[in-house]
Amino acid sequence: MYANEMPRYEILSEDAMEVLDRGWRRIVSELGIEFMLPEAVDYFRSAGQKVDGDKVFLDPEFVLEQVAKAPREFDLVARNPDRSVHIGGDHMVFSGVYGPPFVREGDTRRDAKMADFENLVRLAQSFPELDSPGGTICEPEDRPLDSRHLDMVYALQTLSDKPYMGSVISAENARDTVAMGEILFGGSLPDSPVSISLINCNSPLRWDDRMLSAMLEYNRAGQAVITTPFLLMGAMSPVSIPATLVQQMAEALSGIALAQLVQPGCPVVFGSFLSNTDMKTGSPSFGTPESAIGLLCTGQIARRFGLPFRSGGGLNASTVVDAQAAYESLMTMLPTFLAGANFVMHAAGWLEGGLVSCYEKFIVDIELLRMLKHEFQPLEVTEESLAFDAHQEVGAGGHFLGAAHTLLHFRDCFYRPLLSSTDNFDRWTKGGGLDATARAAQIWRDTLDAYEQPPIDDGVRGALRDYVARRRIELGDEPVPTPAF
Amino acid sequence: MYANEMPRYEILSEDAMEVLDRGWRRIVSELGIEFMLPEAVDYFRSAGQKVDGDKVFLDPEFVLEQVAKAPREFDLVARNPDRSVHIGGDHMVFSGVYGPPFVREGDTRRDAKMADFENLVRLAQSFPELDSPGGTICEPEDRPLDSRHLDMVYALQTLSDKPYMGSVISAENARDTVAMGEILFGGSLPDSPVSISLINCNSPLRWDDRMLSAMLEYNRAGQAVITTPFLLMGAMSPVSIPATLVQQMAEALSGIALAQLVQPGCPVVFGSFLSNTDMKTGSPSFGTPESAIGLLCTGQIARRFGLPFRSGGGLNASTVVDAQAAYESLMTMLPTFLAGANFVMHAAGWLEGGLVSCYEKFIVDIELLRMLKHEFQPLEVTEESLAFDAHQEVGAGGHFLGAAHTLLHFRDCFYRPLLSSTDNFDRWTKGGGLDATARAAQIWRDTLDAYEQPPIDDGVRGALRDYVARRRIELGDEPVPTPAF
Repeated sequence: MYANEMPRYEILSEDAMEVLDRGWRRIVSELGIEFMLPEAVDYFRSAGQKVDGDKVFLDPEFVLEQVAKAPREFDLVARNPDRSVHIGGDHMVFSGVYGPPFVREGDTRRDAKMADFENLVRLAQSFPELDSPGGTICEPEDRPLDSRHLDMVYALQTLSDKPYMGSVISAENARDTVAMGEILFGGSLPDSPVSISLINCNSPLRWDDRMLSAMLEYNRAGQAVITTPFLLMGAMSPVSIPATLVQQMAEALSGIALAQLVQPGCPVVFGSFLSNTDMKTGSPSFGTPESAIGLLCTGQIARRFGLPFRSGGGLNASTVVDAQAAYESLMTMLPTFLAGANFVMHAAGWLEGGLVSCYEKFIVDIELLRMLKHEFQPLEVTEESLAFDAHQEVGAGGHFLGAAHTLLHFRDCFYRPLLSSTDNFDRWTKGGGLDATARAAQIWRDTLDAYEQPPIDDGVRGALRDYVARRRIELGDEPVPTPAF
Repeated sequence: MYANEMPRYEILSEDAMEVLDRGWRRIVSELGIEFMLPEAVDYFRSAGQKVDGDKVFLDPEFVLEQVAKAPREFDLVARNPDRSVHIGGDHMVFSGVYGPPFVREGDTRRDAKMADFENLVRLAQSFPELDSPGGTICEPEDRPLDSRHLDMVYALQTLSDKPYMGSVISAENARDTVAMGEILFGGSLPDSPVSISLINCNSPLRWDDRMLSAMLEYNRAGQAVITTPFLLMGAMSPVSIPATLVQQMAEALSGIALAQLVQPGCPVVFGSFLSNTDMKTGSPSFGTPESAIGLLCTGQIARRFGLPFRSGGGLNASTVVDAQAAYESLMTMLPTFLAGANFVMHAAGWLEGGLVSCYEKFIVDIELLRMLKHEFQPLEVTEESLAFDAHQEVGAGGHFLGAAHTLLHFRDCFYRPLLSSTDNFDRWTKGGGLDATARAAQIWRDTLDAYEQPPIDDGVRGALRDYVARRRIELGDEPVPTPAF
């Protein structure tokens, strides 16, 4: 898997870090954090923290003691051991877009369906640039809400052999995710987590009951969680990057402290989803200068606490896969590499502020990931790399295309694009005059055509199907046709 | 003007720098550099360097002695003193695309005309993100080759009051540029240069006679030059980044050494134009991982020599203003800021590998510059910036849109886009469903409509016109109608 061995780009001074450190301490101790789940409040009360209703006033040193119990790094196990990944350190894990209720396919924008979910998981499985399809790669609106998570987890487990994200709608859904993980791994879970799940804070300063109850299930089962403040500055946080950073610390650390109270040493990730409101329209903005700065700072902060951290991915506010979609996405993805994010959600397919999973954007994002993984490799500067013999051979005013050194290295000397074209105008015109988005459409269709489902034991698949069928009925939903995979 | 006070992103170790240092020394001393202008060779011979025909074998220590005479920083003077810029240190100067024979306007691609040249200069004048229109913002194919430079310099001097780049086709053209500079500045040039000109190396390891003869004119007149190796790896340099970096050092430094022999202390810039060939098609690639790495290294190298450095700008190989054009451009522009390039050519309008000056791309690039200048500002982290009062006011689960802190700061708290849209799908559809390129077309047209020519003294303008008219006849070309500006 990919490890980013390039330097981190850190922009906060020691003084700035100290100001931020004072900031989050003041928030957790003076303002407190609301935990809308009584069980969570009980954990804090029992541990000696001051409680007032749903609100917990946290001693910062107590928070740090809990945070210190979290592993600095951990493995996330895939059913195919070659697909297992490591979370933390220099490692960077990339997963697909998460959550959109709509899909875009060329000029068509429509409600997402289960068939889209499956196709997007197939795409995520097909590209080695993604370590995980993620979880809710789109919201399949044609499946009933109560049992939809069963179909999603089944598709994630069978159409892909990469690690996946679990359902976080409720404790019950989390239990289903854990149970299906046990089946997938032959009856019992390995020591390291097989799923990682997104626990969003209801920012500012509040954790809701559904997310928390799901989190506790995952903590107890040793499954990884990402405690993520959801921060659009101007809406869920003040219109100030430092103020937002301290809020992010207060929220993420309070969630991690709870997780460590529930299950000391359980795997957690410091989450960040930080952008800003467009103050002219009130709409969310993505790929902004502020979000890039926030990302760089977040990396530095998470490392200070010894925690792996999560960031957004190819975020953008554009409606179509145009220049804006591309530059906003790269405006977050390049800082993601500079910051060395350990778990990158929404790394492929995000469009329209996260309302849309887009097939063509998926391919654009894969190209960005390929380029950046190539770019963020240490440059080897050795005597041999100076290729003095090539200079001797070619001499002044010559041409290197036919040089012996070139012939030896031409196959792998440079990045080879998936999507980008260097065709000149005539050749491009003769090829149909397709822009990058039109070419991306060809690529995802070809990729789906070439997709092969990773092998899975028939008994395991049968047991998963039985579980889904049984649980669907228990949840009060009608049976659906057995999937073909 | 803009100064980049963020940290530089440096990726070369001290060991790597030493390997590179040995590399360029070996090239200049063992392989030598060709100077196709006898006068240039004479300079080196007189200074005791070993010469064989056009080839000069340079003592690296001698090269460094010459390079040390170059100013570390200098002013580039504009006719409007408010538009003068500083080159070197943390300062970053941005200029327009340079050289394309074609223009693109929406779906139309055609030969560039003088009217396009003028319009693109007007656009460059209109946006504060550009410090200079550059020089040949497109090649006006409807003007005779011999006297075209007069029309271009006149348009640069009168349609803009920003600093400009001079003609480098020949010594004679350079003399015209200098003479027109003298007229523009009331009869004599100020102490600091009023023009900066691009002297390309005929890489590998050869300087041609026309560029060199132009350079010598500029050196003698105290006008700034950028000695730029022109390096597409695989064609003009080996298929290795380190090999290309040492070639770049050998070439750029040899040109600077000559400039300092001609006129000790004359203003120079370490030039870099470094990308790679697509080894599958043989075509030039831009916005590649290799070009980004090369750019980061170049900054570190130039700083080591105490020289300001120049880089490319919004480079890309795309035919149209699509996702590829955008991500490739940002893939060079963001590293340009990380590297702290002092003079950035092609910062707006570049399309199709530099064959096309594109109006819509110009606007996309202006948006990128605006975003990056906003992003690359040190973050102020103070107690006040933590906005604790806002957190107190809003509390858990609240909303910051109406908070007192927000109302106080909402106007200037975040970057405000020129081109990017955050409109939701319905609003975007009602607004005509325009993608970023279509919106860019509206912006450049509106900008041209709103353009006002900066005032210029009638006597100066008359003298410039007389000079152009006289020289055109001397150069054997037919008179053209007097421009309306």
